[in-house]
Amino acid sequence: MADKISEIETWLQQHDGSFAYIADPTNVFYLTHFKCDPHERFLGLFVFPEAAPFLVCPELEVGQARDSAFGREVIGYRDDQDPWSFVNKALEARKPSSGKIYIEPSTLPFRKAMAVKELYPEAVFASIENFLASLRKIKDAHELAAMRKAGELADYAVKLGIEAIKKGRTEQAIIAEIEHELAKQGYSEMAFETMCLTGENSAKPHGRPGSRQIKEGDFVLFDLGVVIDGYCSDITRTVCYKYISDEQRKIYETTLAANREAIKAVHEGLRIGDLDGVARKVITDAGYGDYFTHRVGHGLGLGEHEEPSMSADNDQTLETGMVFTIEPGIYVPDVGGVRIEDDIYLGADGPETLTHYPKDLQIIS
Amino acid sequence: MADKISEIETWLQQHDGSFAYIADPTNVFYLTHFKCDPHERFLGLFVFPEAAPFLVCPELEVGQARDSAFGREVIGYRDDQDPWSFVNKALEARKPSSGKIYIEPSTLPFRKAMAVKELYPEAVFASIENFLASLRKIKDAHELAAMRKAGELADYAVKLGIEAIKKGRTEQAIIAEIEHELAKQGYSEMAFETMCLTGENSAKPHGRPGSRQIKEGDFVLFDLGVVIDGYCSDITRTVCYKYISDEQRKIYETTLAANREAIKAVHEGLRIGDLDGVARKVITDAGYGDYFTHRVGHGLGLGEHEEPSMSADNDQTLETGMVFTIEPGIYVPDVGGVRIEDDIYLGADGPETLTHYPKDLQIIS
Repeated sequence: MADKISEIETWLQQHDGSFAYIADPTNVFYLTHFKCDPHERFLGLFVFPEAAPFLVCPELEVGQARDSAFGREVIGYRDDQDPWSFVNKALEARKPSSGKIYIEPSTLPFRKAMAVKELYPEAVFASIENFLASLRKIKDAHELAAMRKAGELADYAVKLGIEAIKKGRTEQAIIAEIEHELAKQGYSEMAFETMCLTGENSAKPHGRPGSRQIKEGDFVLFDLGVVIDGYCSDITRTVCYKYISDEQRKIYETTLAANREAIKAVHEGLRIGDLDGVARKVITDAGYGDYFTHRVGHGLGLGEHEEPSMSADNDQTLETGMVFTIEPGIYVPDVGGVRIEDDIYLGADGPETLTHYPKDLQIIS
Repeated sequence: MADKISEIETWLQQHDGSFAYIADPTNVFYLTHFKCDPHERFLGLFVFPEAAPFLVCPELEVGQARDSAFGREVIGYRDDQDPWSFVNKALEARKPSSGKIYIEPSTLPFRKAMAVKELYPEAVFASIENFLASLRKIKDAHELAAMRKAGELADYAVKLGIEAIKKGRTEQAIIAEIEHELAKQGYSEMAFETMCLTGENSAKPHGRPGSRQIKEGDFVLFDLGVVIDGYCSDITRTVCYKYISDEQRKIYETTLAANREAIKAVHEGLRIGDLDGVARKVITDAGYGDYFTHRVGHGLGLGEHEEPSMSADNDQTLETGMVFTIEPGIYVPDVGGVRIEDDIYLGADGPETLTHYPKDLQIIS
């Protein structure tokens, strides 16, 4: 953890930084391992090119912050106190050099940027978001351990969902079964809204689970993830209920081939856009190119979507330590949709798949 | 809905407004009844003192926006298009007058404010948040209907939780039972993380449910809410398992008296701080003043916490149409905590309690 803060310190030295003010709770967690989502209350991590970093958080959370991996100065404030007066005092003690003030412009509320401007009317703001994303996209051993566990639980959740398939059952009821079983075991934080889409709903890329009941011949698509120690998994599996048409079978086998070909193609240095191309070629060659309507995947970690974006136009290359999804899909209106998604860690010895639920076509009887 | 936008138009005329740019999805929903949470994607509602309002949202959501109560111009953009170019064009067509640009500074990301600044380098920003909060705190008939239903479901959820109490069961398992039953019936959106705190945990104001197992003599505290059509309920009930000590009984009866006295005191024109005082006096007179460590309540609506804040220092008065919680509590370390919380609507004929689960002491056997 301290290493990551050192990396920011070095970067600030190289980028004319006065200081960095990091407010996004996920980035604060990434850098300190202190978990705090204070909603409207103030949370701020301040990092300097030379001086010692400090963290300001609600008084009630101070104990937890001091116990975290942060190991530097933690300043608490009560609800009847103005956190900015504490920030001001701690900043003044460090006499920040002139230079840019780095913030997270995509998430930092305007009011908080203006509070900084009040302390430093000459402030020139710049963004530290790309640098933070570049750190976050390379996972260390501790992060990988959490993501392996999150992947195993995603496998288990899919298994629960498939066991819950029964004629006449609704999408919502199946999701309730999955989440109930997980919650009973203490896993109640999902990475995003759990999806179970059946029949024609499975072909809607923005479909929401509802009261549609499972019928014979339906595709049943599960897309879900579990959060472990802040880290997300993200799996999609699709099965068929009772019987499958020839066209459905072709859609399934094509999607599966695209998933497998893309995973096979993963290696350090590969242009990311070309990975999208590998999956897309399989699907296009089978005549379904127009029905694969999204990028092949996205980075995964503390965010359920983070860098890199696995899209055709991404000229970056795959790097050791990245975790990302590979999730080709084919969505044919009125016939149904199939998506098969795995989480991949690119290790020094090549790709490791973090999600293991079997992918061969399953017809549930 | 259109009425609420008219109110903003009038307010902009009176407050030197060039236009208002409303980006918070909850406020957009409040004003248009269009539900959209596009995460990192762009959503913006633009309202003018004279010209016609418009809404910009992802192309995929345009149909839903046009079907909403908004009934004005809706502009969609695809993922490969820059939403700001559409905003710019629509703004230019309306030739906004000079004057203040009203935004939501507490939630609008700095980057988005800067995008406005690029279009209007002379922009002077001001906040529309207080005005929006003053609108939102007075509920109309449609909002009240949703909140009544949300209250009934909160009652039902407490009933489910109390039925799930069993020796040795964990807090997490009880919550899983509640949420599973609700989800099976299609109610899967809770207003906040459902709380079930037992024994000494019930005395921790920031306690989180975990694997503690229910024991004889425990207080079991439920704090939960259900969301209906965007609107939240928020109920707390506390019961005892198997037997109760004299001290626990005194804590319970004192909290209940404070809850009832405060509800009885509700009337239009009452200083809000004095309502906190009514509950606090009951608790202080019983010798537990130091253990009632929070305000008596908070406004409720689309937000699980909104205006007014029912705290001792609030000099505002109760107004017809407000919905707020009354939730006195006593938390004695190592003995346990009791909180009894209801949702109150102040109607023209006086207060209506939206949560009905019985409050007399229950000892679960």
